[in-house]
Amino acid sequence: MNQDKPLILVTNDDGISAPGIRTLIDVMSKIGTVVVVAPDSPQSATGHSITINDTLYINKISKENAPILEYSCSGTPVDCVKLAVNEVLKRKPDLCVSGINHGSNSSINVIYSGTMSAAVEAGIEGIPAIGFSLLDYDWNADFEQIKTFIHTISLEVLEKGLPENIVLNVNFPKLKEKEIKGIKICRQAKALWIEKFDKRKTPQGKDYYWLTGEFVNQDKGEDTDEWALANGYISIVPVQFDLTAHHAIQQLNTWKWNE
Amino acid sequence: MNQDKPLILVTNDDGISAPGIRTLIDVMSKIGTVVVVAPDSPQSATGHSITINDTLYINKISKENAPILEYSCSGTPVDCVKLAVNEVLKRKPDLCVSGINHGSNSSINVIYSGTMSAAVEAGIEGIPAIGFSLLDYDWNADFEQIKTFIHTISLEVLEKGLPENIVLNVNFPKLKEKEIKGIKICRQAKALWIEKFDKRKTPQGKDYYWLTGEFVNQDKGEDTDEWALANGYISIVPVQFDLTAHHAIQQLNTWKWNE
Repeated sequence: MNQDKPLILVTNDDGISAPGIRTLIDVMSKIGTVVVVAPDSPQSATGHSITINDTLYINKISKENAPILEYSCSGTPVDCVKLAVNEVLKRKPDLCVSGINHGSNSSINVIYSGTMSAAVEAGIEGIPAIGFSLLDYDWNADFEQIKTFIHTISLEVLEKGLPENIVLNVNFPKLKEKEIKGIKICRQAKALWIEKFDKRKTPQGKDYYWLTGEFVNQDKGEDTDEWALANGYISIVPVQFDLTAHHAIQQLNTWKWNE
Repeated sequence: MNQDKPLILVTNDDGISAPGIRTLIDVMSKIGTVVVVAPDSPQSATGHSITINDTLYINKISKENAPILEYSCSGTPVDCVKLAVNEVLKRKPDLCVSGINHGSNSSINVIYSGTMSAAVEAGIEGIPAIGFSLLDYDWNADFEQIKTFIHTISLEVLEKGLPENIVLNVNFPKLKEKEIKGIKICRQAKALWIEKFDKRKTPQGKDYYWLTGEFVNQDKGEDTDEWALANGYISIVPVQFDLTAHHAIQQLNTWKWNE
């Protein structure tokens, strides 16, 4: 950690005006120098999407001499991180935090999550990064209950750094601060969404669909994020961006590929 | 493998009219019963994006009694897989193939790739899945050179199945068929994109950006996909969707999270 105040990049996927990111900015401003580069509109479930076939805009929205620099961006959460690192910030930030997401990014949700993809992108660029999510989809969720934990976790990461090539996926149960039992380091539960498309007709009679679904946890392991959250704990999953299934290489090498 | 002809779902991210997917459909039609559900427009770099804040449309574009059912979809590659499995297909397919992508999905590109995200989504749903990419961004790339390999790899997967919870990321070097040395099972090389934003002005004088960048491979390992491709081999990386960095859990547990 630098002797100077740490430089902290804040982003999210719910858009720069979401209560979740406003809470995160508030906590980070007590830790370091904060720069915000976040989508100008909601970008939930954009995954690791980037904008390559369209133009990108960034607008400085903070006032002259404001203590915190804020920029809104027309792109995805990953675009925000790339633009922040390359065009906005004068040096590599000491920490990138993404969120607080309005809703869960535990288990398989990590893969669809714009919040976590922003953190992963920062990780790829060598920046210690954390995604924060609260298991409450309400726009007016009570983020006050988790501010102390976010402060603690962020300080810990700033102080210790993170193991190489990983970022943290932090999910909070929807509980009062005093009810939260503590923090558990977890693995991602094996779960999936069983889709159910809601089929409707336009006023002109054309079929269309809304994607809906039911989350099904097939994994009862007590070392999973789902277990921790269901039992009153904050879950922290170390997330990697080497997607290689190393354990499968040996088996695949027994196949007769080149005969 | 069923006694009946295998049911094969084909999708991509370059859009249903791209030469890459037309080649893939051609190869698959010699193996099984093919159903195509692919984006109606290019969706490159959409990652694991899904459409939750907008409506989805599917249009049957194949003619009555055509041997291959084809549907275009307004959504992302992942939406295509979800819609195919839930609304189009009468049973779970025996194989899902995605591509052939016009351009590389080796190394870190896997994380931005719509092609691979479609394959990963199929994998999450328990369907053996393969993403195919050719290292040639040209719309009129010579896909003929790799048809035999795609046929062989697909048959191998249909016959043997895949290890649980993995899908295959297959990349082809831009070579003539006879120049290709064979297939190598690889790990994802540690590489990244160094962004370079191309800053321009609109006719009205407003700044905007195009995302460009340079691919930098920091990993000289001869067990990587980058090495295989640079040396004339087809790379196959087994890809997993459990993003947990299991090796980091022990280390993170030594931190004083709950004091």
